[in-house]
Amino acid sequence: MKAYIKSIVEINDNKLSKYFAFFIQALILLSIITFSIETIPHLKPQTKTILRSIELFCVIVFTAEYLLRIYVTDNKLKFIFSFFGIIDFLAILPFYLSFGVDLRSLRALRFLRLFRILKLVRYNNAMNHFTRAIKSAKEEIFLFIFITLILIYFAAVGIYYFENQAQPEHFSSIFDSLWWAIITLTTVGYGDVYPITVGGKIFTFIILMIGLGIVAIPTGIISSALTKSIDKKE
Amino acid sequence: MKAYIKSIVEINDNKLSKYFAFFIQALILLSIITFSIETIPHLKPQTKTILRSIELFCVIVFTAEYLLRIYVTDNKLKFIFSFFGIIDFLAILPFYLSFGVDLRSLRALRFLRLFRILKLVRYNNAMNHFTRAIKSAKEEIFLFIFITLILIYFAAVGIYYFENQAQPEHFSSIFDSLWWAIITLTTVGYGDVYPITVGGKIFTFIILMIGLGIVAIPTGIISSALTKSIDKKE
Amino acid sequence: MKAYIKSIVEINDNKLSKYFAFFIQALILLSIITFSIETIPHLKPQTKTILRSIELFCVIVFTAEYLLRIYVTDNKLKFIFSFFGIIDFLAILPFYLSFGVDLRSLRALRFLRLFRILKLVRYNNAMNHFTRAIKSAKEEIFLFIFITLILIYFAAVGIYYFENQAQPEHFSSIFDSLWWAIITLTTVGYGDVYPITVGGKIFTFIILMIGLGIVAIPTGIISSALTKSIDKKE
Amino acid sequence: MKAYIKSIVEINDNKLSKYFAFFIQALILLSIITFSIETIPHLKPQTKTILRSIELFCVIVFTAEYLLRIYVTDNKLKFIFSFFGIIDFLAILPFYLSFGVDLRSLRALRFLRLFRILKLVRYNNAMNHFTRAIKSAKEEIFLFIFITLILIYFAAVGIYYFENQAQPEHFSSIFDSLWWAIITLTTVGYGDVYPITVGGKIFTFIILMIGLGIVAIPTGIISSALTKSIDKKE
Repeated sequence: MKAYIKSIVEINDNKLSKYFAFFIQALILLSIITFSIETIPHLKPQTKTILRSIELFCVIVFTAEYLLRIYVTDNKLKFIFSFFGIIDFLAILPFYLSFGVDLRSLRALRFLRLFRILKLVRYNNAMNHFTRAIKSAKEEIFLFIFITLILIYFAAVGIYYFENQAQPEHFSSIFDSLWWAIITLTTVGYGDVYPITVGGKIFTFIILMIGLGIVAIPTGIISSALTKSIDKKE
Repeated sequence: MKAYIKSIVEINDNKLSKYFAFFIQALILLSIITFSIETIPHLKPQTKTILRSIELFCVIVFTAEYLLRIYVTDNKLKFIFSFFGIIDFLAILPFYLSFGVDLRSLRALRFLRLFRILKLVRYNNAMNHFTRAIKSAKEEIFLFIFITLILIYFAAVGIYYFENQAQPEHFSSIFDSLWWAIITLTTVGYGDVYPITVGGKIFTFIILMIGLGIVAIPTGIISSALTKSIDKKE
Repeated sequence: MKAYIKSIVEINDNKLSKYFAFFIQALILLSIITFSIETIPHLKPQTKTILRSIELFCVIVFTAEYLLRIYVTDNKLKFIFSFFGIIDFLAILPFYLSFGVDLRSLRALRFLRLFRILKLVRYNNAMNHFTRAIKSAKEEIFLFIFITLILIYFAAVGIYYFENQAQPEHFSSIFDSLWWAIITLTTVGYGDVYPITVGGKIFTFIILMIGLGIVAIPTGIISSALTKSIDKKE
Repeated sequence: MKAYIKSIVEINDNKLSKYFAFFIQALILLSIITFSIETIPHLKPQTKTILRSIELFCVIVFTAEYLLRIYVTDNKLKFIFSFFGIIDFLAILPFYLSFGVDLRSLRALRFLRLFRILKLVRYNNAMNHFTRAIKSAKEEIFLFIFITLILIYFAAVGIYYFENQAQPEHFSSIFDSLWWAIITLTTVGYGDVYPITVGGKIFTFIILMIGLGIVAIPTGIISSALTKSIDKKE
């Protein structure tokens, strides 16, 4: 009996286990959509009732799945404290917690439900490529994140120096300038803050010329690490 | 006779077939330009008459081309239901449909004419490189589109949590927040919605640092797959 | 005598020719800066006089250089109609033309002076790498520019369909929508036009997911072609 | 004694030297955070006193570290004028200078403290990869920075020609247009200046199609140089 349930719950090559996996994935997506719809303001009471019923159904299935997984695993403690064990637990926790606590603090707890989306990763073995690619270039990626952070800080201090007096409302401190530095060096450029002095504009130009090259490097490294990983597979 | 037409209509190395291909391509471009001009509001009646005449001419030629292609193909059914058979059909369909239906629903149908642009692809054999490059890295590309979608959803939920109370008009639900997440992670940054709380700004920074690297990876994969494909050719 | 001038004017390894090259380059930069300053409105008469004197000096030197180059070249006609022969001619032409024509049409002519900047390229032999890299991937680059153009047109037609009725002032015709499509797919995102309907926003999302990967591919191809070219050099 | 201090101050494999390095790094970060907080307007007097005390403590430690490093080095002059010797000196200079000069000019001097962040680099040996990658592609990177500058200038002159009369307040001279050119070609796109004429929009499109490919090339070159450098390591 235990062996039979194990063959279904844990990914195997038989048909039933595939149906089970597909059913859980569909339920995760359904649960995520329900969660999103709930945030729409001024929902009708009927809609809320339907959403709550769907949520109840999802939690029941996820709880059953969680318990079954504990049941079929030999080393139960190891599973409970494994990555997916914790994710499975966090996926159902907010629902049960909402009984014990008052309604006010519910809001923040609801967001824990978002972790359900990570349950999807269990069914994706192609992920390994990515993890391996990142691991092989770990040192370089950290170096560039470090350089990028220094660069952003430099940019923030520089623009504070140039723009603080001209626009004290937008560049009131280095912390405000950091927002500008991030949005500019990632080339998002919302347009809520931008330099207006000649010095600030020239500084922006120089920082962009240096910065764009550096900010994009981690992507380049990951891409080529991935390509090599794909090559090996072939 | 049939063999002679076939040698012209289907791409061959003789001169006449090249002229024919060039003529059809020019007509596709002309038809696309006509279609664009028609959308300009307050056109003069004379201009409209000219545009309609050009459209009529294009449709007649495209119909003749379509029938000729059916005529010269041995396996007629296979051609009709092939990619280019359907495109050729969709390119002329809106014109003939406009006789049978009333004017109101015409608007949406007119857009089917846009598919004519895909007729251009027939004359481009370099396209194979691209298709092969995408196929060889299919699995990884899908993985990253999947990761990107999860990331965008995470970003939307996070910013909803931080900005909903400060800007209820811009971040009213997770669906509204999704718009922000897409425009920010692609670095388009229109500036119609952006975080104003300190928490929202720090969250944006973290999401951008993680997100930019991931969103750009599929491009890197396709590029290197293409480069390898070009190398083999050489 | 001619051989001596030739050894100076044309790039050689002797010191005098290096000084000459450096002098001409400095003069090109000076001339470009003068040209830029002239566009500042409400300049003082004295400043204008100084700018005109510098311009006069530059033109005299460039004319002398042009004549010397013709003098020392064996195949004079070939030089005159070569790329750099024409650039050298265009660099001095606007000045001499300004004597014969009235002041009104001067404005447009002045911009011909900009071509002087291309004279700088003469002194840069690393350029060959780039030209070779582009040539080796010519076919693929053209293909992707073609695909990008089709994609931009598709995006424009799609957004016109979704936004025309909601924002007739911004998306009045496909030509107006093309502006949006270009600014969005290049991720510039000025924020002067953006979709406001739900349909338009979902369409933008899909187009961005497909488009970003494609628009960035030519860069990837050129980069790797360049890298290979650098590898060979080593 | 000297040998013992040397084994702690200069990076070695013993435990004490690791604690020392960690302590200095923590102090650098603390000093940077203090510096940032000081720029916040309307700080309470107590906060200012605390910040000044932290700053005093940091300067004392950094001075001690600087003197110790001089003491343990054999070639003292070489260290003082080395990169890190100068950085260590600049990190404490602003504090001591503030005694001798009046308060007005303090503002600019305070920014010298920012150089402390460069002290962090001392503890990072992965930096060599990056320096080597840049050196190996030095020529190409300079070429593309040069091409990018010419392109930005061209873009500025072109947009000035198209937009000057329509928007004299935004495109008053080529210098103003340069700001637009930089923000557009880096795809930041704040939205403070953008073309409104048809000619200007078409020009922007062409410049973007050419420019995006070129601006992103240095990143591509550095990325692949880095990848090769990582490959060799393995």
